[in-house]
Amino acid sequence: MKNNKKIAIVFGSQSFEHEISIVSAITMKKVLKCEIIYIFIDKYREFYLIPTDIIKSNLFSSGEYKKFDKLELNHKGFTRKKLFGREKIKFDTVLNLVHGGDGEDGVLAGLFKFYNIPFIGPRIEASVVSCNKYLTKSYAHSCGVKSIGFQYFTKNEIITVEKFPVIIKPVRLGSSIGVSVVNNKEELDYALDVAFEFDNEIIIEPFCAGIKEYNLAGTKIENEYQLSIIEEPQKEQFLDFDKKYLDFNRTQSILSAEIETQLEEKIKESFKKIYNTFFEGSLIRCDFFVLDNEVYLNEINPIPGSMSNYLFEEFNTVIESLSLNLPKHKQININYEYVNKIQSAKGKA
Amino acid sequence: MKNNKKIAIVFGSQSFEHEISIVSAITMKKVLKCEIIYIFIDKYREFYLIPTDIIKSNLFSSGEYKKFDKLELNHKGFTRKKLFGREKIKFDTVLNLVHGGDGEDGVLAGLFKFYNIPFIGPRIEASVVSCNKYLTKSYAHSCGVKSIGFQYFTKNEIITVEKFPVIIKPVRLGSSIGVSVVNNKEELDYALDVAFEFDNEIIIEPFCAGIKEYNLAGTKIENEYQLSIIEEPQKEQFLDFDKKYLDFNRTQSILSAEIETQLEEKIKESFKKIYNTFFEGSLIRCDFFVLDNEVYLNEINPIPGSMSNYLFEEFNTVIESLSLNLPKHKQININYEYVNKIQSAKGKA
Repeated sequence: MKNNKKIAIVFGSQSFEHEISIVSAITMKKVLKCEIIYIFIDKYREFYLIPTDIIKSNLFSSGEYKKFDKLELNHKGFTRKKLFGREKIKFDTVLNLVHGGDGEDGVLAGLFKFYNIPFIGPRIEASVVSCNKYLTKSYAHSCGVKSIGFQYFTKNEIITVEKFPVIIKPVRLGSSIGVSVVNNKEELDYALDVAFEFDNEIIIEPFCAGIKEYNLAGTKIENEYQLSIIEEPQKEQFLDFDKKYLDFNRTQSILSAEIETQLEEKIKESFKKIYNTFFEGSLIRCDFFVLDNEVYLNEINPIPGSMSNYLFEEFNTVIESLSLNLPKHKQININYEYVNKIQSAKGKA
Repeated sequence: MKNNKKIAIVFGSQSFEHEISIVSAITMKKVLKCEIIYIFIDKYREFYLIPTDIIKSNLFSSGEYKKFDKLELNHKGFTRKKLFGREKIKFDTVLNLVHGGDGEDGVLAGLFKFYNIPFIGPRIEASVVSCNKYLTKSYAHSCGVKSIGFQYFTKNEIITVEKFPVIIKPVRLGSSIGVSVVNNKEELDYALDVAFEFDNEIIIEPFCAGIKEYNLAGTKIENEYQLSIIEEPQKEQFLDFDKKYLDFNRTQSILSAEIETQLEEKIKESFKKIYNTFFEGSLIRCDFFVLDNEVYLNEINPIPGSMSNYLFEEFNTVIESLSLNLPKHKQININYEYVNKIQSAKGKA
């Protein structure tokens, strides 16, 4: 059954996760029942309208996408050139599926806010807090949600690690890029070089090999949380980029993790505290650690791979309702009261 | 003496501080010696090129600005319509002078990053951290800089205050909008209503009537800090919007605050810890409190009123050098390695 919403999936862009964004976007065609159109952002940040019926990943790797309509974005929305003038591309809501840079760091959120484009995805502040692992921990703390203890270092600082194994992560970037598990002192320098290749700041956390991980995705619609099942991801030591990449075209529903009701409730409560009003407009996935029955936030994915569709029983309904309940911006009334006051006081300003 | 740089001052926009941005922008004409052009963003977020020789505040309050050239922004930069095609507006660097919304919350930073426009001003992350008073405190803590203790509340929470006076502030917004000093229980409800008018989250801090305040502005150019003099602002209980507004057209240099060398050093060190690499590309003003010889960060103004020109001896040199030393973005190499791998594994993806 098709519904009446038309969603514009925006994907690609100047990001380390450009390619997994393409995979995520194509996956949506298999799971979304509403009408969808595809707006690709290439590495030069040019917009292209890709026909939904023929979209496939090698259109992008081959450069073939360039033969399709180039779009412009301004207050009229996305438009394409016609014989006379320009035509507006019609859709109801953008679904921001740009993973990593541009999509999850607030660039597109800023662009869409400026041009008043309704979109599903994290707003600027939510993007910055999710994208920066240090700020994620601060934010979690403010919400009363625990996270793993850590050390924070900037480039050129003297870095000493007392106890191995540790996990080293660049402060920004997602999808395990630049992340290493370090088992001993000998492995440290190389891992630091790798992490600092991607960022000027890193965090070092203790690495707990046997730690349980649980993922929960969800959103809030009309003040009601819509939560997914809780997944215990099957993973090796941790997912490297290749493995995560293959993870982005998942469509098959999975079984809930077998956990006690009490722990399940704790995880759900932690999710709600994180989501609160901060993530309004987005569907996020929180990855939690559980140690001695305590729940710790590991990371927030404000644009999870393939939107975590496989975790929801009613993914279509969730996306459609979310698109109908996006946060509204208050229009600011600018009446030049102060300028007028000064002018009357000074004659002319 | 004119130098060769051409700076485009971007101001106005959909912001509670739209009008003080106009005042700040016009003030720049009096203090900047380089060539400047003016790009006004009206409340509908349309761009206009305002002739530098005739700019004055009533062009905006009267709506007269609309007779000037409307601009478009895309990968070609800012362009205006010509008889045939469009002409690029030439400048070297934007100076983001949009105070408050759009300017200081990351919207314009996102827009300029997307379209590769070089600009003086805070980047997205720095904007979000400065704009959100809760995140400012978290960030200060991560840098080893103290801030005043506080309580944090969201709308609809039960709010109790044990000890008066307190100062109530919306979490976002600047320029004292929605801020009240509350002396007793009777004044509380009204002050909370005012604050929640502007934001869903507020912070409540103890209000210390006699606290000393010191302002320091600065930037970093080629890894060297360029700091202003330290000012002890002359203020009543605290500056309300009207008074701050008049403060935005200051051009006259002032005298340094009379403080001990040791305290001066502490304030400067705190500034450097805050600025670090996080604020690269911007000239910020940090407002500090001093209590019992301890320095506390009060707030970060990532686009201070009239760029705090009156605090610098060599304001022109600072702005010009900053415009020559803006942070560079690393271009991400997108080679479709993963897409190609999948295609060869699966035939076609």
